[in-house]
Amino acid sequence: MPTNKTTVLTRSPLLYADSESNADQLYFGDVFVPDPFISFGHKGKRYAVINALEFSRVAKESKFDVVLSYEEYKDRAKKKYRKSEVGVVEIIRLIAAEFKIKKFDIAENFPAGLALKLIKANVGINVLDGSLFSEREIKTEDEINFLKEGNKISAFGIRKAEEVLRAAKIKKNKLYYQNKILTSEFLQNKISIACFEAGGLASNPIVAGGDQACDPHCFGSGPLRPNELIIVDVFPRVLKTGYFGDMTRTFLKGKANDAQRRLVSAVRDSQKKAISVIKARVKGDTVHKAANDVFTQRGYKTQKTENGYKGFFHSTGHGLGLDIHESPRLSLNGSMLKKNMVVTVEPGLYYPGLGGCRIEDVVQVTNTGCEMLLKFHYKWELP
Amino acid sequence: MPTNKTTVLTRSPLLYADSESNADQLYFGDVFVPDPFISFGHKGKRYAVINALEFSRVAKESKFDVVLSYEEYKDRAKKKYRKSEVGVVEIIRLIAAEFKIKKFDIAENFPAGLALKLIKANVGINVLDGSLFSEREIKTEDEINFLKEGNKISAFGIRKAEEVLRAAKIKKNKLYYQNKILTSEFLQNKISIACFEAGGLASNPIVAGGDQACDPHCFGSGPLRPNELIIVDVFPRVLKTGYFGDMTRTFLKGKANDAQRRLVSAVRDSQKKAISVIKARVKGDTVHKAANDVFTQRGYKTQKTENGYKGFFHSTGHGLGLDIHESPRLSLNGSMLKKNMVVTVEPGLYYPGLGGCRIEDVVQVTNTGCEMLLKFHYKWELP
Repeated sequence: MPTNKTTVLTRSPLLYADSESNADQLYFGDVFVPDPFISFGHKGKRYAVINALEFSRVAKESKFDVVLSYEEYKDRAKKKYRKSEVGVVEIIRLIAAEFKIKKFDIAENFPAGLALKLIKANVGINVLDGSLFSEREIKTEDEINFLKEGNKISAFGIRKAEEVLRAAKIKKNKLYYQNKILTSEFLQNKISIACFEAGGLASNPIVAGGDQACDPHCFGSGPLRPNELIIVDVFPRVLKTGYFGDMTRTFLKGKANDAQRRLVSAVRDSQKKAISVIKARVKGDTVHKAANDVFTQRGYKTQKTENGYKGFFHSTGHGLGLDIHESPRLSLNGSMLKKNMVVTVEPGLYYPGLGGCRIEDVVQVTNTGCEMLLKFHYKWELP
Repeated sequence: MPTNKTTVLTRSPLLYADSESNADQLYFGDVFVPDPFISFGHKGKRYAVINALEFSRVAKESKFDVVLSYEEYKDRAKKKYRKSEVGVVEIIRLIAAEFKIKKFDIAENFPAGLALKLIKANVGINVLDGSLFSEREIKTEDEINFLKEGNKISAFGIRKAEEVLRAAKIKKNKLYYQNKILTSEFLQNKISIACFEAGGLASNPIVAGGDQACDPHCFGSGPLRPNELIIVDVFPRVLKTGYFGDMTRTFLKGKANDAQRRLVSAVRDSQKKAISVIKARVKGDTVHKAANDVFTQRGYKTQKTENGYKGFFHSTGHGLGLDIHESPRLSLNGSMLKKNMVVTVEPGLYYPGLGGCRIEDVVQVTNTGCEMLLKFHYKWELP
């Protein structure tokens, strides 16, 4: 689990969330808890208020300095506020009083119902934009290793897809694997299992061929076909640490035509261009524009049609960490990159009729450029 | 995907969330979208505001009646409010103005940052307690079938664990499977793969033996041992629909002693008792007390110790649906059960030194009692 910075605790952050879906909560306490719980920081220490069910596990396994009993706080709050039933609001109110905390920092995604009740109860709160811990953007050495692990697991998934596609047979505009029609679902399943065996949870890997791939977040379904571009995007979460991997390759089983080759080479060159531009103190939008310029120069236009968009209509990349999509962004309003940020670089082109192509790797920003977290080949035409 | 009730739309619900982690958003639009987006209801119709990346997929696959373009709304909001940059707040403000919506209903877990900005911008909001769609508690026929599917997948996982334990060999206080020491991690992996192959995502199945099992949410790690109770709790999410399964069995490889047998039989009898009490118009706390009474009668005490709690210190069950834990609860403050609610029934006892036991099944509440969603045997001593 990550070696968090101590700067976390110069303020008094307040959280009420589970730590399986809420990355801030996981970052703060380094322990998986499936139900929402209160945690807060005060004078350099991390506190959690935990119910009987989780108490001893959290006390043992987490990074919280002090684990308080939810049931005890509940009883004390009942007495103090003379109520027969109290909830999270009264417990936080009691904590604010006992620890003399005038104002808690909460994240944008703190639950609104609770925030409004706290305001009503005169508990001071201050809403931050984005994450509660902006330092999550800059990765420690440990965190970079966890992200490398994530990408290694992505690569297991992609390699498995490649293996199956290589072994598949082409018969009359269909692909067969072990004498059955090869489908997106079959490959998704194979990828997920490969990732699992390597220690990662790959929910919803994308295996989308032909026009399906032109909706960049379409997971893909039904039979895969020869001679069409197939986007394979694998983003597993490492089970032990909660950090993600994210990698995309576009394959084609059979023989590509010239238009497909031009498309793939434009995307790969756009990715190379973006990677060549990335370094500390360059802005995210500069990287995005560089990637986009390659497409414009080669005549690939982006436009809205009746059925949606075609061309290049997503960002060039995003931060990767305990969230699959986190700050910073490599997009039109992308902010300044800093040393040890970790971002995906994943330009793509999508034209119904011709198909879609996206190529994605993850890099660590350095002062002089960037380093790939993992190298994986770019061979895409599979005979 | 579920056949939602039309009662959803007598109000104007407002959501800003992704639909992979937010069950309300998935319930409302019936489409998986990994990033947060705006959706709302108005005069019997469901609306979503979707960016270019997801536009055509959501328009095609979702249950939204109208899919609006995020980029177009952004441009219009810029003009209307004469700003060079606008965000979600201004877009919602524009929607409220255009559709003449005086007050949106938002859920407790709506993001606080956005809620406070909306209040500041004079957009009317009304925070509901709990889910935005309380009708999620009552399951339709489709939803019950999706939950049955989830439980079928749980059972695949449990059966796999049982198979491996049956095939394992006992040598000197250790278990061996295929000539390797059998660990919690190995079984967790096997379970997850079995669930995957059946179409479900089983994140963090619990395989906890001995004293580890006494922390009910400890996932378990390291070598499993003969003659100790091993809790196996499997709660996969069905990939296609987002509905969960949830099932627990406690196994023992080798030979149980009398104390272990008494413990397991108390838990099973407590579960039977709870199931016999469940029906529409009975309160959740009545069920919980019935389960607990069996333990009290047999002398199993619940108490807090220095290292946490022992005895029975969690609720008897919880609603199951698009969230793994949802309303209603079978606990001390559990509310009235209604026809076609679906709840887990999972009493447990935990005593360090002796071990932990939990047995869990899922039932559908009827007017006269309840029906098991899936039947799976209770043999637990595996020679």
